[in-house]
Parts: sequence; C-alpha cells; structure tokens
Amino acid sequence: MASRTLLLLTFVSVINICLCQRGRDPPTARSCKELKQKHKFNKDGLYFLRSARGVVYQTYCDMTTAGGGWTLVASVHENNMYGKCTTGDRWSSQQGGNSNSPDGDGSWSNTVTFGTAEAATSDDFKNPGYYDITAEDVAVWHVPNNERVDRWKQTSFLRYHTVTKFLSSYGGNLYSLFKQLPVKYNAGSCPANHGPTVPVAYDVGDATSNHNQFGPNVRANSVPGFITFRAINNERAAMAICLGVKPTSCHTEHSCIGGCGYFPEASPRQCGDFTSLDWDGYGTHAGWSASKQITEAAVLIFYR
Amino acid sequence: MASRTLLLLTFVSVINICLCQRGRDPPTARSCKELKQKHKFNKDGLYFLRSARGVVYQTYCDMTTAGGGWTLVASVHENNMYGKCTTGDRWSSQQGGNSNSPDGDGSWSNTVTFGTAEAATSDDFKNPGYYDITAEDVAVWHVPNNERVDRWKQTSFLRYHTVTKFLSSYGGNLYSLFKQLPVKYNAGSCPANHGPTVPVAYDVGDATSNHNQFGPNVRANSVPGFITFRAINNERAAMAICLGVKPTSCHTEHSCIGGCGYFPEASPRQCGDFTSLDWDGYGTHAGWSASKQITEAAVLIFYR
Amino acid sequence: MASRTLLLLTFVSVINICLCQRGRDPPTARSCKELKQKHKFNKDGLYFLRSARGVVYQTYCDMTTAGGGWTLVASVHENNMYGKCTTGDRWSSQQGGNSNSPDGDGSWSNTVTFGTAEAATSDDFKNPGYYDITAEDVAVWHVPNNERVDRWKQTSFLRYHTVTKFLSSYGGNLYSLFKQLPVKYNAGSCPANHGPTVPVAYDVGDATSNHNQFGPNVRANSVPGFITFRAINNERAAMAICLGVKPTSCHTEHSCIGGCGYFPEASPRQCGDFTSLDWDGYGTHAGWSASKQITEAAVLIFYR
Repeated sequence: MASRTLLLLTFVSVINICLCQRGRDPPTARSCKELKQKHKFNKDGLYFLRSARGVVYQTYCDMTTAGGGWTLVASVHENNMYGKCTTGDRWSSQQGGNSNSPDGDGSWSNTVTFGTAEAATSDDFKNPGYYDITAEDVAVWHVPNNERVDRWKQTSFLRYHTVTKFLSSYGGNLYSLFKQLPVKYNAGSCPANHGPTVPVAYDVGDATSNHNQFGPNVRANSVPGFITFRAINNERAAMAICLGVKPTSCHTEHSCIGGCGYFPEASPRQCGDFTSLDWDGYGTHAGWSASKQITEAAVLIFYR
Repeated sequence: MASRTLLLLTFVSVINICLCQRGRDPPTARSCKELKQKHKFNKDGLYFLRSARGVVYQTYCDMTTAGGGWTLVASVHENNMYGKCTTGDRWSSQQGGNSNSPDGDGSWSNTVTFGTAEAATSDDFKNPGYYDITAEDVAVWHVPNNERVDRWKQTSFLRYHTVTKFLSSYGGNLYSLFKQLPVKYNAGSCPANHGPTVPVAYDVGDATSNHNQFGPNVRANSVPGFITFRAINNERAAMAICLGVKPTSCHTEHSCIGGCGYFPEASPRQCGDFTSLDWDGYGTHAGWSASKQITEAAVLIFYR
Repeated sequence: MASRTLLLLTFVSVINICLCQRGRDPPTARSCKELKQKHKFNKDGLYFLRSARGVVYQTYCDMTTAGGGWTLVASVHENNMYGKCTTGDRWSSQQGGNSNSPDGDGSWSNTVTFGTAEAATSDDFKNPGYYDITAEDVAVWHVPNNERVDRWKQTSFLRYHTVTKFLSSYGGNLYSLFKQLPVKYNAGSCPANHGPTVPVAYDVGDATSNHNQFGPNVRANSVPGFITFRAINNERAAMAICLGVKPTSCHTEHSCIGGCGYFPEASPRQCGDFTSLDWDGYGTHAGWSASKQITEAAVLIFYR
C-alpha cells in the first residue's frame, strides 16, 4: 500500500510542475514583488500569479530594474491610429466617440480583462493584477510594437517609474485611483480637476529624450519628468495617463493617452487609445504631433 | 531514495493547491451543484470547474439560495444602449443589424466563450458551463453594472429562478434549448412559435416589483412571474429570454433580451443585447421604455 | 510526521489531475507530436500544451491521421461573409479595409491569441502554438461551421497536408514564415512575390473535389493539389493561404484567404477573412464564387 502511494505521487509530481514557476516554486503570490521578496525569484520573465479571489493568471515580471519586483498589469497599444474609437480601442472606446458614452469602454475603472502578456506589444492588455494588487508605484515602458517578450528590455527606448509611493493615497492601484477620478467626459474641468502629478525617475532615457518624443507645441505646453493621471482638456474630455509629462496648458490630448468616450473638439478625431498624438499628421513630430517612434510603441504599465 | 522522493513531493504539494479550490478539494466537478453535493462546498464564490471534455474554467457559485448549487454560466451586459448591434453586443449581433445575419453572432447556440466571472457585471460573459452542464432550472439575477463579485448578492434588486425542471425537456441547458429553438430572424411567428414559458419563484423582489421595472405599455402587454424563452415579435425577430415576464402580445422586444441579428421595425433601432428597452427614451420608464435601474444592470444567468 | 506527509500528498494527487491529460501524463509537451512520440498519447481530443516560455493552453490533437501528432494552432472562420473587414475578421482586418492599415490586424505575424479549441468552427482561433511550435508540415481541414469537436473528423469534407517539410525552410512555423513574407498590402507584386507553393496529400477528398469547391473562373485560374502561401493579387493585396490550390493568374482573392487590411479593387468588397469567395454572389458556385459548402466551413490549421 505504501509503495503504491509513493508511485502515484511521483507521477503526480511531474504533472503539476507544468502550471507553476518552472518547477521551482508555487504560484501563490499576488504580485511579482511578493515572488521576489518571499520566494526569491529574481529573473525577468513570465510567472503565474493568483489574485485575492483565487483567479490565476500569467504575466511578466521585471525582477531587476531599480530593485525589481515590478508586475506588468496593463499595456495600451494603438492598433490603428487612423481608427477613432473603433475596434481595438479598449482603453478609450470602441463605440465611435459619442457623448452618449461619456466613459467609453470604462476599462480604467472596471474588472474587465483582455489580452495576454506575450502579446502586450501587439494588442491591448489588462490582467486581474490591475485591480487586485496593492501597490505603491507605477512604471511605464515604451516598447516598439510587435516586440518579443525577451527583447522588451533591450528595445524599450523610454522607461520611467514614480518614486513617491503615491498609489498608497489612492487605494493602492490605478483601478482604485480611477474609481475616484473617473476617466469620463465632463467629470471635471482643466486644470482644476486634474488628478495627481507625480515625479518619475528614468531607467532608460531621460526627461529630455522623453520630452523630445513630442512635437514643439506639446513641449511648449508641458514639463517632462512627471506623470499626470486623469488629465482633462479644454473641452472637458478626460485622459488616463500623460506620457512622462505634466501638462502646463489644457491641450492635454497630445501627450496624455487612454481617454474617455467623447472628445468634443473635431469629434471623433481625438478619440482613441492614443488620443490625438497625430493632430498635425501621423508621426510627423511637428506642431502637436508626436514622433513616429512613440506613436508605434506600446505603453506598458507596471505596479510595485 | 525514498526520502528524496518525499522531499520532492512535499514541494509539489504546495505548488498545486494554487489552481484548485483554495487547497480544500479538487476541481473535478462539472458544476457548482456537484461541488456542493459531492464535495460539500457551501460558500458563495469563485470555483474551478471542469467540463466533460476537460476544459478547466473558473466561475461563480451561489451555494446558498434555495438550496444552493447554482452555477453562473452567462451574463448579458448592455455596454452601450445607444449602440445598435455594435461592438460588445455579443448576445445579439456586432454586425449592425441586417437580414444577411439572421442569427447575428449566434452566441445562444454555439460554443464560443467570452468574458470572465469577475467582470460579469461589466461585460458579456459566457463560459463552457453554458453548453457543458446538464441542468434542470435557470436562475436570473439583475445586478447593477460594474458591481464587485462579493457585493452581487446584496445589491441585486431582482432574483428569480424556474422551479419546474423544464430544462430536462430541452436537452439540459440553454445551448441545447436554443439549438432546437433558434434565436434567429424569421425562424417562426408570434405567438405560434414562442418557446417555453416557465413559472419562476422570487428570491429577491417579487412579481410586482419585477413588473414595475417596465413602462406601462409593457406592463399592459405582459404578465410577471414567468420567463418566456425564444420569444418572437410582430416582425418575426427572435429574442432569447424575457425578463421575468410572459408576453401577452407580440411587442416582445421591450421586455425580452438577447436577440437575433435583424429586427425589421425601424432597423436597427431594436437590435442590441438589450433590444428595445429604450424605445420611448433611455431609462424613462414611460411608454415602452424600461426603468434606468434595469437598463443599467447586468442579467446573470445560472444553472442548477 | 512521515504518515502526515503521505496523507497530504494523497490529497494533492487528486487535485492536480484536473489540469492535466486526464490523469495520465504531464502537460509538459510543446506539441501534439511530442505528446504522441514521447508520452504515447494516441487518441484524438483536447490536450494541455506548454510553450517554451511557460504559457499553458489547451488545444485539439489529431493523433491518428497520417501517423498522427498534428496540433491545431489556428482556425479561420468567416462570421459574416457580408461584413467586409468588420468585427470578427481577425485574420484580415476589423478596421473596414483602408490603405492606412496595410497589414490589417496583423494576426499572421504577431503573438496575439484569440478563441478556444472547442469554438474553432464557430469563431476565429489562434493559440500560442501558432508561434511557439517548431514544425515541418501544415494540415488544413474544412469543417462545417458550428460543428462539435467530436464530430470534426466525420463531418470535414476536405482535409489535406503538406508533405515536403517546407516549414523547416521558413523558421518552423507560419508565424515565422509570415514575418519573412508579410501579409501586407503593397509588400510585393503578382506573381513575382508569391510565397512558397507546396504540394499536398489528401486525407479526405481529393484534388478534384477540392477544385470543384470553386466556381468555373477560379478553376480555370488555378491548379489543385497545392497550398500557396502569401499570394498576391493584381492590385498588390496579400493573402495568407490558398485553399488547396496554386493560382495560375493574379485573381487570387477568390481562392486564397486571410488577407491584409486593404484590397484596392472595389474596396472594401474583397476585404475579410474569406476575402472574395463571394465575388459573383454568396455561395452561388458560379463565376468567381465558391460553393456554399466551403463558404460556410471553418478552415482549421494544424502543424506537425
């Protein structure tokens, strides 16, 4: 009887390795930070995590930058800069841009998930960590579209992270922050109702190279070295995240992304995951337009 | 050798708990009813189930209402009442409403799955249980949009379930029922070809509060305390489920949801996951329009 | 202590079977071929596989045809032949057909995944095996839409596979092949820049019955018994796979499917997952139009 049990167990042990961290440790951690601190994983790559409610999912952990323990929770990927709130604009609206959908798809403050870690530079991505993990800081990576996971680090041209543990004041994650500060048309006015502006440290690139990704008009209307969350523009449209800048005017739609469902100015021209980064032409890097490089790169969002 | 084996196995035992019911029991059950009856789980929450063909998925189990053992298999969520068979209308059609797509997306009678349990009040949801589980009765919950799983029970304002074990006459689930009675334009006429009308018992609310969710014209053309499946309207459009009512006329599109791909009357105005609940204005609760409360609540569908 | 450990392990052994091959063997294989050769599985059905990067997924294995070991990696399903690059056209474009999206959704050469094996005849399907597995040959099955997994083999009316191990010359899978030969508008001209034409052996049907699925004009402009990959048409639009034929003219859009995001001729009439199989009417089997049978059947793609 005892030997039979042992035999069975040996068999089982082989089976189970498959769903875990390559046979090394259990996926009972809720975040990459926990995987690193408690379980001593220190290699970048895909790991299984488990949410408080028991949802198991796989995502990418950055275990080395600035101490490591960063969990990829989302990516904003512009699948079609010419599509204005069309299919694939999951971080703004897939409904065309209309005041009837003031919060668009609502992804910033709901529990809908989509995409996969391996496709995070080819499609929008959002996992349960986005609303489950309790974190302090946010990191942003700009990685060229369609890049392979194992090349993200070397091909990213901008990487920065907040350093003030600001998330602790907003419920511990962006889901909670955007519940309080909705990415919704007409939820407030500019500049009175901007959300927090948080300073960042650069891991790749610097404030100047960050600023230089935008056209001259954007540079004249913003300061680099920060992320502003839930920016609002002149027409009361809301955006989720400003890409390494703090806007100094209300033309926020040219450097802040992930918008609500309605942008009144020249509607729906500013509506879409990458809002109006193409206002003066796609990738022209002139006037209010961003560079081709940043326009064709996914924005990866990490928590720690 | 023996001690080495034991060491390995202890390690493995930790790994595997993660993908199961919080370390308590194996996810070999095909339904919440089986989890409750065979494995004695009796707490509401997310569980892993496994289909006959070996597909593993996670869903919500209601283990307490009317004896418990209810499996969440689907939710119908209206993401944009103004979008008429546009993106997100997975229980009707995402193709705009056209006689060329008489059965629309076909979700009621195919094996396509989408969404997640945790997002069932924020997005359409359909899991393998919808077509895999052999059940007798159906329960319907009306839960406000974007509600967290652990608050569904307390915030739902209407919950009712069938009591006649009618599914046994239709193959054991709605997939099978709608294979026999397609949700398809021109599959039959009203009232000759309505599917079954089944009496319900109320767990939250009652027949009167259910009826009062609809405008006066709907109330004058229906009787509460039932679900009619596969209703057909005057123009030969088909709907899947009438929300706690039995239609007494052929204006079924104002209280029955989840439609086919073509609604001839004022096309595409009646096309969409929540059909024409807004015929006399969004949430006006006048004429043929439903209340704002029921318009902005997801319809969760359970089997037992 | 020892007995307590054994008790725990017995419990765990039950848990883990659920996520594996029905308790028989571990899902550590990267392909069905490996499952068959190394682990001696020889029954058709759903299995768990694991990619090199540790992604676990479930797909269908054909363990018997021509030696077995075929992994289902994708299906191309036309959800709406009248929708021209609309929602659901994931193997071409969901953006309407426009020269601004020359490669459309880009699914042939990115790591985005969608759908499930059980719904592969009801919806587009693509799993990590598509880009992860290193294979030699491709098999194609034509299975009627909405067919159950366990009936695919008996209801498929055409099944053929390449025999030259051509994938070895293109990186071992279609992901790699289409990285080299993009399915993109204006990536080349016809016939100079067609990709490889590979002879096939028939497992169900034959070259004549294959050819007869197309209208007379297509038959006059193609030769059956081959697959041509990355065909290009007169207007420089690109298609991924020709359905059992080698085009002998540049009217490739009537027998080759899975196209780029822009088809200039009568745009967007040729744009969609099944391109222009309906040029002379839906399912008419006349002129340039294909039969109703092949128009209403999903195209399943296997690797070995």
